[in-house]
Amino acid sequence: MYKNLNTSQLKETYRLLTKEYQKVKEKGLFLDMSRGKPAPDQLALSDPMNDIITSDIDFSNDGGLDVRNYGAPEGVPEAREFFAKLFQVETENVIVGGSSSLNLMFDAIGRAMIHGIMGSTPWSKLDKVKFLCPSPGYDRHFSITEYYNIEMIAIPMLEDGPDMGTVARYVEEDEAVKGIWCVPKYSNPTGITYSERVVNAFASLKPKAKDFRIFWDNAYYVHDVFEADQLYSIIKACEEAGNPDLVYQFASTSKITYPGAGISAIVASKANIKDTLDKLSYQTICYDKVNQLRHVRFLRDPDDLAAHMKKHAVMLAPKFQMVKEELEKELASTGVAQWTNPNGGYFISVDVYPGTAKRTVALCKEAGLILTGAGATFPYGKDPEDKNIRIAPTYPSVEELKTAMELFCLCVRLAAVEKLMGQ
Amino acid sequence: MYKNLNTSQLKETYRLLTKEYQKVKEKGLFLDMSRGKPAPDQLALSDPMNDIITSDIDFSNDGGLDVRNYGAPEGVPEAREFFAKLFQVETENVIVGGSSSLNLMFDAIGRAMIHGIMGSTPWSKLDKVKFLCPSPGYDRHFSITEYYNIEMIAIPMLEDGPDMGTVARYVEEDEAVKGIWCVPKYSNPTGITYSERVVNAFASLKPKAKDFRIFWDNAYYVHDVFEADQLYSIIKACEEAGNPDLVYQFASTSKITYPGAGISAIVASKANIKDTLDKLSYQTICYDKVNQLRHVRFLRDPDDLAAHMKKHAVMLAPKFQMVKEELEKELASTGVAQWTNPNGGYFISVDVYPGTAKRTVALCKEAGLILTGAGATFPYGKDPEDKNIRIAPTYPSVEELKTAMELFCLCVRLAAVEKLMGQ
Repeated sequence: MYKNLNTSQLKETYRLLTKEYQKVKEKGLFLDMSRGKPAPDQLALSDPMNDIITSDIDFSNDGGLDVRNYGAPEGVPEAREFFAKLFQVETENVIVGGSSSLNLMFDAIGRAMIHGIMGSTPWSKLDKVKFLCPSPGYDRHFSITEYYNIEMIAIPMLEDGPDMGTVARYVEEDEAVKGIWCVPKYSNPTGITYSERVVNAFASLKPKAKDFRIFWDNAYYVHDVFEADQLYSIIKACEEAGNPDLVYQFASTSKITYPGAGISAIVASKANIKDTLDKLSYQTICYDKVNQLRHVRFLRDPDDLAAHMKKHAVMLAPKFQMVKEELEKELASTGVAQWTNPNGGYFISVDVYPGTAKRTVALCKEAGLILTGAGATFPYGKDPEDKNIRIAPTYPSVEELKTAMELFCLCVRLAAVEKLMGQ
Repeated sequence: MYKNLNTSQLKETYRLLTKEYQKVKEKGLFLDMSRGKPAPDQLALSDPMNDIITSDIDFSNDGGLDVRNYGAPEGVPEAREFFAKLFQVETENVIVGGSSSLNLMFDAIGRAMIHGIMGSTPWSKLDKVKFLCPSPGYDRHFSITEYYNIEMIAIPMLEDGPDMGTVARYVEEDEAVKGIWCVPKYSNPTGITYSERVVNAFASLKPKAKDFRIFWDNAYYVHDVFEADQLYSIIKACEEAGNPDLVYQFASTSKITYPGAGISAIVASKANIKDTLDKLSYQTICYDKVNQLRHVRFLRDPDDLAAHMKKHAVMLAPKFQMVKEELEKELASTGVAQWTNPNGGYFISVDVYPGTAKRTVALCKEAGLILTGAGATFPYGKDPEDKNIRIAPTYPSVEELKTAMELFCLCVRLAAVEKLMGQ
């Protein structure tokens, strides 16, 4: 336990860690762990998808819709059905989009800025629009709200989801609060899954603003690595609570097939889908329908999808294990860090000694390891305690990951000792 | 000449036309000519494109960028190069997007609404934003400006482009004028191509608003059907005039490969590209890069593209011919209509007897022929003379087109006679 060390012990620890750090620096590493990217062997799992749509297919014969031509901004029927089955809703509850679900979220807010939601005042005409941001959370969500000049309010993340008491107070008392960002399963970055209690608390919200929406980014719904967490359906919960229009659910195949060439979906009440399509038809004539068809014919149905995701899990499990082992081995005894132990998703979240996250990330960078910027997981990039760091273990090989984690743990320790020495 | 007919001759003509119309109605036709869609045989020209990206490709070996993974919001280098060659610019002047160039235009205005252009006041913060709309023009352009509550000002279309005197007056005197919609080659719907004089007049504009941009939708740049019109490069013209940032050029492969699964591009000055990418990176992580690669490997370079477009021309020429022949045969002698004679593109524009376009379209619909709504080619759907109708001859077969054009001409004549009779 570093906190029990006296000054001379700290000095000696500092000397040893610095020496070790210099040695690692001399190796001239270059490792990028900044983003949650699938590794090449994971991408290769979906390469057979490229053999599905070929020149000898009869395109004209596909339920009356020629996917090659214009039309169907709501998506190819089979693709809508695929997501409908996955989320246990009806086809009419789904719009299937292009390769980026982030873009669907960006556009959903863009539409609200210009036209409001279901006839409400356009958000760009309001003095103030606020979003709740359970933190730590997904940096790109926060970037979108910042882009739209939406005020972000950080909400504490607990072990089974956001602090719902605080959420309810803001949502039910402040009409300027128009949305909340959620990654409900294997949350980015903490890896926790919202409990049924939390999902029901969301569904039972009585927003002051009629155009308040939950932005439910279900990015990791099928991305189990170990024993699968269970996520209660927000769509079902909202229906049961008599609030069917409360939520926009988003999903994509980015980490199922290809991040650079997948398909995405909005899942919501029929009224929300209608409201969305009415505006979407100004934006585009249609999304890429050939790729939608390619995906559905490759992924087929939820059972086949589950089998496909098992193959990802086999590749990811040793990486998550390696990170957890290294953290345990190198940091447990120091008492200067805590970390999450997710059953899936793409991240492990580490809380280092308060006030040392930025310094840790800088030390890593200096030695050739690029991490997600410290603070990125908080609104405006400001981690109030400067302690959270997101580890993205999926892209490097297990060997690279071992090297990276050794360096990371070294930097965590070095930064903590510096802090304890009062530097 | 209908205008020379006396009352009893008009009555007799009306009786005969009505009888003929009733007979056609009884046939129970159903033909949709409302949109400029390629026909299935045109789409089939690009079916071999589906055999290009297969599972045995080495994705990891492609210039350091794995197109399957995240990254490169500016597009795959080869795809940028393809459009750069086509428009004789540098790779850095190009962003390659997803399947819809319309979406790129929608997003360009969306960005300006929220953040202005190159640091200007966000358009959503201004009391009034205006766009110039050369008319008749493309209905979906006008829908986008209407969506964003941008005031539209109709500008007369002349034989070699918009009335540049009027354009210059608005652009140079009114700071609220922020943009103009242009389809510079085979203009939608008139089919004319802007002359070099007009292109240079555009390039020499001295806008009152620093954030004024020409929205140059070069949708039909390679879509020659007969003898090719030549379009002078707006990018080059703007550079030469010392106004490199004046224009956003847009293009897509929608009517080259598949409308429902193509790729698109923005071509502009490096400063415009930088300004765009800075904001684009909030919107999405990347467009579909696999489809970009698929396209470039299929279309290869401008010469191969030209050969590909010749195959489209072979299919389209008889359709344009048929429309022109029927118009000539059925309407020339009546003196109640005029039409354009484009060398390419997707449309023929017909001016019917003033005050009868809506009625003509309604008569066609009643007999089973769906045309683009009358007025759609003008801002707010309001054709001041109610005379322009857009003919989209590409989708039906030549035989269907003959039937459709016979019906169309009949309805044009019937509506004109009704009008002349004072009904």
